[in-house]
Amino acid sequence: MGIPESLRGLEWELPHNFLGLDEAASDFERAKAVILPVPYEATTSFGGGTGGGPSAILESSRYIELYDQELDAEPYEVGISTLPSLSLTGAGPQEAMQELRAAYDAVMNAGPDKFVIMLGGEHSISSAPINAWIDRLDNEGKRLSVLQFDAHTDLRPEYEGSPYSHASVMHRIHDRVELVAVGIRAITAEEMRLVRKSENIHVFLADDIHTGDAWMDDVMSRLGEDVYISFDVDGFDPSLVPSTGTPEPGGLQWYPVMKLLRRVFAERTVHAVDIVELAPIPGFSAPDFLVAKLVYKMIGYRFSQPTV
Amino acid sequence: MGIPESLRGLEWELPHNFLGLDEAASDFERAKAVILPVPYEATTSFGGGTGGGPSAILESSRYIELYDQELDAEPYEVGISTLPSLSLTGAGPQEAMQELRAAYDAVMNAGPDKFVIMLGGEHSISSAPINAWIDRLDNEGKRLSVLQFDAHTDLRPEYEGSPYSHASVMHRIHDRVELVAVGIRAITAEEMRLVRKSENIHVFLADDIHTGDAWMDDVMSRLGEDVYISFDVDGFDPSLVPSTGTPEPGGLQWYPVMKLLRRVFAERTVHAVDIVELAPIPGFSAPDFLVAKLVYKMIGYRFSQPTV
Amino acid sequence: MGIPESLRGLEWELPHNFLGLDEAASDFERAKAVILPVPYEATTSFGGGTGGGPSAILESSRYIELYDQELDAEPYEVGISTLPSLSLTGAGPQEAMQELRAAYDAVMNAGPDKFVIMLGGEHSISSAPINAWIDRLDNEGKRLSVLQFDAHTDLRPEYEGSPYSHASVMHRIHDRVELVAVGIRAITAEEMRLVRKSENIHVFLADDIHTGDAWMDDVMSRLGEDVYISFDVDGFDPSLVPSTGTPEPGGLQWYPVMKLLRRVFAERTVHAVDIVELAPIPGFSAPDFLVAKLVYKMIGYRFSQPTV
Amino acid sequence: MGIPESLRGLEWELPHNFLGLDEAASDFERAKAVILPVPYEATTSFGGGTGGGPSAILESSRYIELYDQELDAEPYEVGISTLPSLSLTGAGPQEAMQELRAAYDAVMNAGPDKFVIMLGGEHSISSAPINAWIDRLDNEGKRLSVLQFDAHTDLRPEYEGSPYSHASVMHRIHDRVELVAVGIRAITAEEMRLVRKSENIHVFLADDIHTGDAWMDDVMSRLGEDVYISFDVDGFDPSLVPSTGTPEPGGLQWYPVMKLLRRVFAERTVHAVDIVELAPIPGFSAPDFLVAKLVYKMIGYRFSQPTV
Amino acid sequence: MGIPESLRGLEWELPHNFLGLDEAASDFERAKAVILPVPYEATTSFGGGTGGGPSAILESSRYIELYDQELDAEPYEVGISTLPSLSLTGAGPQEAMQELRAAYDAVMNAGPDKFVIMLGGEHSISSAPINAWIDRLDNEGKRLSVLQFDAHTDLRPEYEGSPYSHASVMHRIHDRVELVAVGIRAITAEEMRLVRKSENIHVFLADDIHTGDAWMDDVMSRLGEDVYISFDVDGFDPSLVPSTGTPEPGGLQWYPVMKLLRRVFAERTVHAVDIVELAPIPGFSAPDFLVAKLVYKMIGYRFSQPTV
Amino acid sequence: MGIPESLRGLEWELPHNFLGLDEAASDFERAKAVILPVPYEATTSFGGGTGGGPSAILESSRYIELYDQELDAEPYEVGISTLPSLSLTGAGPQEAMQELRAAYDAVMNAGPDKFVIMLGGEHSISSAPINAWIDRLDNEGKRLSVLQFDAHTDLRPEYEGSPYSHASVMHRIHDRVELVAVGIRAITAEEMRLVRKSENIHVFLADDIHTGDAWMDDVMSRLGEDVYISFDVDGFDPSLVPSTGTPEPGGLQWYPVMKLLRRVFAERTVHAVDIVELAPIPGFSAPDFLVAKLVYKMIGYRFSQPTV
Repeated sequence: MGIPESLRGLEWELPHNFLGLDEAASDFERAKAVILPVPYEATTSFGGGTGGGPSAILESSRYIELYDQELDAEPYEVGISTLPSLSLTGAGPQEAMQELRAAYDAVMNAGPDKFVIMLGGEHSISSAPINAWIDRLDNEGKRLSVLQFDAHTDLRPEYEGSPYSHASVMHRIHDRVELVAVGIRAITAEEMRLVRKSENIHVFLADDIHTGDAWMDDVMSRLGEDVYISFDVDGFDPSLVPSTGTPEPGGLQWYPVMKLLRRVFAERTVHAVDIVELAPIPGFSAPDFLVAKLVYKMIGYRFSQPTV
Repeated sequence: MGIPESLRGLEWELPHNFLGLDEAASDFERAKAVILPVPYEATTSFGGGTGGGPSAILESSRYIELYDQELDAEPYEVGISTLPSLSLTGAGPQEAMQELRAAYDAVMNAGPDKFVIMLGGEHSISSAPINAWIDRLDNEGKRLSVLQFDAHTDLRPEYEGSPYSHASVMHRIHDRVELVAVGIRAITAEEMRLVRKSENIHVFLADDIHTGDAWMDDVMSRLGEDVYISFDVDGFDPSLVPSTGTPEPGGLQWYPVMKLLRRVFAERTVHAVDIVELAPIPGFSAPDFLVAKLVYKMIGYRFSQPTV
Repeated sequence: MGIPESLRGLEWELPHNFLGLDEAASDFERAKAVILPVPYEATTSFGGGTGGGPSAILESSRYIELYDQELDAEPYEVGISTLPSLSLTGAGPQEAMQELRAAYDAVMNAGPDKFVIMLGGEHSISSAPINAWIDRLDNEGKRLSVLQFDAHTDLRPEYEGSPYSHASVMHRIHDRVELVAVGIRAITAEEMRLVRKSENIHVFLADDIHTGDAWMDDVMSRLGEDVYISFDVDGFDPSLVPSTGTPEPGGLQWYPVMKLLRRVFAERTVHAVDIVELAPIPGFSAPDFLVAKLVYKMIGYRFSQPTV
Repeated sequence: MGIPESLRGLEWELPHNFLGLDEAASDFERAKAVILPVPYEATTSFGGGTGGGPSAILESSRYIELYDQELDAEPYEVGISTLPSLSLTGAGPQEAMQELRAAYDAVMNAGPDKFVIMLGGEHSISSAPINAWIDRLDNEGKRLSVLQFDAHTDLRPEYEGSPYSHASVMHRIHDRVELVAVGIRAITAEEMRLVRKSENIHVFLADDIHTGDAWMDDVMSRLGEDVYISFDVDGFDPSLVPSTGTPEPGGLQWYPVMKLLRRVFAERTVHAVDIVELAPIPGFSAPDFLVAKLVYKMIGYRFSQPTV
Repeated sequence: MGIPESLRGLEWELPHNFLGLDEAASDFERAKAVILPVPYEATTSFGGGTGGGPSAILESSRYIELYDQELDAEPYEVGISTLPSLSLTGAGPQEAMQELRAAYDAVMNAGPDKFVIMLGGEHSISSAPINAWIDRLDNEGKRLSVLQFDAHTDLRPEYEGSPYSHASVMHRIHDRVELVAVGIRAITAEEMRLVRKSENIHVFLADDIHTGDAWMDDVMSRLGEDVYISFDVDGFDPSLVPSTGTPEPGGLQWYPVMKLLRRVFAERTVHAVDIVELAPIPGFSAPDFLVAKLVYKMIGYRFSQPTV
Repeated sequence: MGIPESLRGLEWELPHNFLGLDEAASDFERAKAVILPVPYEATTSFGGGTGGGPSAILESSRYIELYDQELDAEPYEVGISTLPSLSLTGAGPQEAMQELRAAYDAVMNAGPDKFVIMLGGEHSISSAPINAWIDRLDNEGKRLSVLQFDAHTDLRPEYEGSPYSHASVMHRIHDRVELVAVGIRAITAEEMRLVRKSENIHVFLADDIHTGDAWMDDVMSRLGEDVYISFDVDGFDPSLVPSTGTPEPGGLQWYPVMKLLRRVFAERTVHAVDIVELAPIPGFSAPDFLVAKLVYKMIGYRFSQPTV
């Protein structure tokens, strides 16, 4: 919806990109941050609706203040470019993940130093960017740490007949990374056995971290230098984000999450992130707004280099 | 949830099957009609939610009167057995359709003379039972006619990368049957070309049939003796069924549909039916109720042998 | 959200413009039709929510088939350009209407021969384009006829303290045009007196036109050669469009409206249209879809020159 | 919420009574019509919510035009007084109905010639006013005719353990009145047997009256001079009123109902009416508005003495 | 919906019982825990909808992980049998409570050592099982302690004309038990006077217990050895459970409730429990899920004998 | 809706005023507290719906217990009179604010010592009562302190073309008062600069006050003796009040707000308050209930003179 030159001066609404930024601030070439919406939803269990997540986040983001009082900065100034949504094939989850991997590689090639924020969609999509980053770091002799915020470990070998399910996404990558999972409160016995016998899976149960923040040191100690953050919004408490497939009581609160994120971004190199599993409830937009703010906070932490 | 013998006498609710029938009336062995719920939803375009269709239909059906004043009969007396929902694989649409075909065959084998009513779920699932009936009739040297109620012809060779999409379901079987589509009001140019050049596809546009019923003769003349009915509920006008993926204005009204169905069941052999694409809207149950009633009317027409 | 050259080949979603058209088909310069969204809402009576109308229409339009079976054509081929939404001042209705008039004039100047479809927003906005067309035709010595679809005449001198209210929009222009109002079923005694004494206001009460179509001849006879159509969606029956401020029972049905529109476009020159007062209900999208289809039918009728 | 004298001149909203009438127009003593809200709900089957009916009707009524174009009159001028809601005992349906009967008698005594419109709440409440009118007419040697608009005959001897259920309301009075039921499309075999053997129950099935209006003569011929109208809003088609407990497809449309009502009011003496079973859907107010309009049309027909 | 032998091998969904357990795990005879749904709703104050509570809890429970990480166990292995819902008479609250008492006795007789979890429905139903346990323990010379989680004390002698109201349930049993009420934040002056003069009613106001957990010792000291837990879900904070009739701000949080429950189950004998007053909001399932999890946690605490 | 004398004895519902008080308790002349509903909504940004705030608060308030256990008192005994809603002009925000000021002055004159609680509506309306109190105190040589609970500072010079916007309300009065803003977590860079250079604006960022309560001393030290409280409900955390235009995560919790309010009322003279920006979500009433309770707590704190 480019505006004809002759009509430029009229009182147009903010653009429908992340934060409603103008052309200069959202230009892909100069942007340091890139939003990649992937409204993929194929293996829903309970309810569904994550396909509507990216557009709800983008729409809500247009009402966020550009200034961040915690950082005393306007983080958007680094440039944030919002790509259109990827429309993955309906031929099956394997084919869709291949398509996504190719697309993610193309985005990485187009902007090798950009900070890519992928918006889901269901959690299954995270395997594509994580694998992309594993491969890229491999070439440099580095090992990726994945910091997962989630209510579920998603460590099943397969689910509903598919190894590409949202419930299996971390199983697909768990033996190639350090996996640090925060906020877990729903896990199968089989997954627990895997966690216990694995040396590179580190689970922080919600039951153990709902008071204080001493556990954050422990999280930091498990994370290597190179980090990918995969944020399933059901990691949050359902009072904050009821808009998700299987909301589990006893989840994470806003300020502890911010505190941990700030520290991770300050003390590690976060290469990319994804935010997944928001399933917007029609007429109930507060959770969409919260997730949009989460995205902007991550961008702020990433580029403002806050000291802890 | 079988009730222990010692607790049989208490005031239990109606069972959660179609119509809330007791054990005798819903026993599989003696039932002439079988409800097969298939809440499959994988290739959603706009909205989604058809996975919730079968349970909404079953729940609503428990409030339907067993007596049918049009037929002056209680059609449930033939026995109506409700199977549990089939939970198809998440490995991809092709695999899911294979699984469904196998299940459908099993049901047909378990009750070769039963009248199977499949409840969707998205329209893609219809290809499995239609192919099953094509094959069965083939063995007897007969050709199946498919009577499709729908807003869309669903005749695309593929859609969103898959030939197993809801938008392609009739393309997959169109060259093996007489296809009579009623209520169509959204069609691509490519589909229209296919319709025009095909001798066995007969489309009754909603634009042409919204007044009078002379067109019903024409429908009947296109139908062979052996009929399968595939009823996409978006064939109905959105004022009746707004609860569907792509509701198109100008659809079919209740009484004309009943009139045509009554006639088809009276003058042809309807082997099986499916009712698909109901995507229930939370808190808005009237359309669910209407679709439940549609199911019961079909059972009534099938077994009451009404004279026209 | 322009796509960087290097990422053009990926599987992007359809653009978020009317019908989801690609750049060629939606380019302003070559487009014969222009969509101008004006989500203005300031003087709500009951409920409110018309500010969400344009985006709901645009979103729904992306699932409309491009081919129109009634016209046997793909009307989008004339080019349909969707402008961003106008964000009118909050300084008051008078100031907002002045701003809208200036913007509308700018659009007319930028494309003098384009067919502008304004999407509301509340009905008050119609006065700006109608006055623009009155003035333009005045210069050519012509008189505008306004064909109004509506449940209410909107002929109050003022409402809630403002002459710029949605309930006053037609009073503001009634003495400069031929006003033909169709579907009216809520009118004040004062408005009725004005109608009766006026020679250029012609009201077709819904009570009188809900059967047959002989009245359409009468409508046509009241319309001059140069027509502006102002379509308040509450003209439709609430079973079709419950999503509006004051839904009145007994409204217009889909096919009669199509029949009349087709004839008006064929036999008169329709210079521009607006569609207003859609107040989307979250989670209930069928009416949004219907209104999007109404817009596309008008474009089709306008450019396909159907013969009646 | 009486307004202090010193604050009378401010811009207060319309009062929260039927139509939002001022004190003069809504004064009980001079009003010819009285609205009696009875939000009683105790024996719900499917869903529930009829307790919210009266307030939704009253709220919507405040946006109805006072002028009625069909009657060319402002019917409110006869005075319409809205009583507060009756809050019936929770001690059980029998006790509640006794309480309602006493209250109804008190209202009749307070205004013997007033036209009382009772707003439900569930249908069970109708037995109180109907019995009150049977008794009153009995004293005058007259027999009451009850004109019932409904999807269900409500002729069960008891339902869910109670003879005071909404599903039994007409059984409780059927042998003391002429009962004329219009729009019926859900009936038990037992009820049908009762109808067939009764000489004073006259059922007009929706199946038989959905086209034309010749059946209206038949309705009129069954009605005696003294009429009570009990209007279950599920008599309407669910496309018009989805907001009810058990919406049955194939119901009554707006204009035929108006036509019949107009004639009944013109040719008979309608002593009182009730409108019951509206169960408002949050955020979906069109049906509430329709029912409010139905109430006002009845008042208009009652006092405008329209000729047919 | 028993599955015919010939169809056993197909991919059926999980059964619609608590947790979706298979026949072995849900068999009544061997189950140590029994779910008894009682969707009774008759004396609603504000809103209503508790009749839908049990089915929402059961439906949500099917997505709960069977493994409990806090207990490092799979508590379902003790066997959990879900009975159908009891459909209590509509003849009035007294009759309904008698019916419920008889049913509860029958269940206790059928499985004297089973742990019965009753799911409401409104709070009025709790008097039946509490009285059943009072009587049973009486025979053994023991006194029951009732641990009530609630926002309201429910100690009114009667409410809305009935001593069987949800607001009176604890008054009906308060003089026969030790009553320990936790989370109270809405209480009448009369109730407070009763609390103050009673020696066996112990109220823990939410105002006093929203920080720390020292108060839990006090709760324990008030509880005798034999405990019945009556859990009104409005005891939880409305941010966790907005889906209830009269949500009061300042309620209980998830982890403190778990901590107290764990301790009560470990240190006392909990004979039975009920969970009542969930009134599901259509399309907003997080609270239903939380309550389902609460049920499963109680079963886990009951049978896993956790040490504190 | 005054009740005729002859019908006084019937079982009428509670009146539709704040708390559902009877005539004596709600009589304007003797009431010490006055509720003034102002459902004004004109400059909505995201969503809208604040026009429905006052009626949702009043409706919910009817289910609040009159006794307050924290205060051990029944605060309503001071008398609480609820005025009808003001219906401000649609001529523009400036005209509307003038009208509101005149109305507020009239209310102050009618009851100079009454405690006026204004219910919004959007935040823009607060400037009228604040200016009224500035002027009144000016005459007495006093300076007003405004205690603002809010997520946003609302200190923009103008917004969307109007200095009367909800986003500008505090800018309009900031140089005439001590402004103490609590809970802020969305602020523009320009507003922050204003805050920093101003000596009489004191902002307590939510980031800084979400733990402990030492900051409350600081708040108290900034407040003069004469206080006006302007409570934008988006100051609360969205888990408590999602029903608002731009819900910001990380907001205030219930008990800290109560603690601060109690102290302010005890240690300062609070002349008047407003509660604004509640935008009720249909079918989701918990936040409405919370806000009603907030209103009643303020009345309790005001008149019970609690000691801290």
